[in-house]
Amino acid sequence: MEFNTEFKPLTVQPQEIEGKSMEMIDEEIGEHSFIEEQWPVVQRVIHSSADFELGKSMVFHPDAVQAGIKAILNGEQIVADVQMVQAGISKPRLKKFGSDVHVFISDPDVVDEAKSLNTTRAIISMRKGAREVNGGIYCIGNAPTALLELIRLVKAGEAKPSLIIGMPVGFVSATESKEELAKLDLPFITNIGRKGGSTAVVAALNAISIIADRVSKG
Amino acid sequence: MEFNTEFKPLTVQPQEIEGKSMEMIDEEIGEHSFIEEQWPVVQRVIHSSADFELGKSMVFHPDAVQAGIKAILNGEQIVADVQMVQAGISKPRLKKFGSDVHVFISDPDVVDEAKSLNTTRAIISMRKGAREVNGGIYCIGNAPTALLELIRLVKAGEAKPSLIIGMPVGFVSATESKEELAKLDLPFITNIGRKGGSTAVVAALNAISIIADRVSKG
Repeated sequence: MEFNTEFKPLTVQPQEIEGKSMEMIDEEIGEHSFIEEQWPVVQRVIHSSADFELGKSMVFHPDAVQAGIKAILNGEQIVADVQMVQAGISKPRLKKFGSDVHVFISDPDVVDEAKSLNTTRAIISMRKGAREVNGGIYCIGNAPTALLELIRLVKAGEAKPSLIIGMPVGFVSATESKEELAKLDLPFITNIGRKGGSTAVVAALNAISIIADRVSKG
Repeated sequence: MEFNTEFKPLTVQPQEIEGKSMEMIDEEIGEHSFIEEQWPVVQRVIHSSADFELGKSMVFHPDAVQAGIKAILNGEQIVADVQMVQAGISKPRLKKFGSDVHVFISDPDVVDEAKSLNTTRAIISMRKGAREVNGGIYCIGNAPTALLELIRLVKAGEAKPSLIIGMPVGFVSATESKEELAKLDLPFITNIGRKGGSTAVVAALNAISIIADRVSKG
């Protein structure tokens, strides 16, 4: 009997849990300098990590959120660095607009090319993205080398992403790769420091697609 | 030219980056009370999150790591709560022993049953796991309701996991679900507090499969 009492709150539906969570984040965040359109993105990153420090470390290019909304409404494609990011992104909202999520890192041609050039699959997957995708939103949560290669492609004029969400996590190169991203003169969402990861990038993209969906419904 | 200099460190291969990262974690962790066989699991969770607080919040049942190694060597199946966890788990090492990763949350029968019972797909997916998988390692990174349902199934004698890696993240029910897990008298890996998530659970499972693979090679 004690058991049933204990488990009573569990019949709560996911939507209710999410609403309550977002309220708690609003209450606990304290002072911050994110503007209104950025806040839902930060809020969802905190929701996915329970990490206010990670949320507060986020940095936005001033056009980032609007550029992301526009790209989704235009049905631009999403390029993810790893399968985990692809798996986490909510697809039904994207597919309504003709967008889908692509990850090239395990493609046989990418694997072969990385081997023959003695470089990483992450790097070659970004080159494939730049060749195959026009504009697009790049979501990089794992591989600093992918993000640094994408930055190189942008500087070389070989990639023109509509938005880069670059938040690789890690101890080697991650922080540096995000500092390089924040120097670019194009829409980006990133964060300062070692933290980040697939979950954070997924949360940021999903937050933008929720806003795009709402915009489309007027 | 400055550009090339800047990008020089990027030719480093992923294995080297990982080795260097693990060394940095060893250096920075400070005092902790994890035993030797638990440390590679904690270390990989920190590696995947750059979050020492998350790593230090981990709690192990005394048999957890050995039970996980044994289950993998025996080719027991892995049940994940969400696709992100499935996507992140390294499969080649598991498949050598006959193990694979299953996620039931989007199965049509699970979706239908959740609707007809007015409950969550996460809950019904755990019931399906309990029916279909003998023993097994349950990896729950997202849904507290999934973990609480699994705990209920264990108490009711309807599920007998060899190991539960339960680290759901969140503001509502996540902390409580992990406290309930830590009361079970079976092998578990969890953590205290709100943090956790798919990446953490994936890192813990991958750490154990790396050890199992090493053990199998003698």
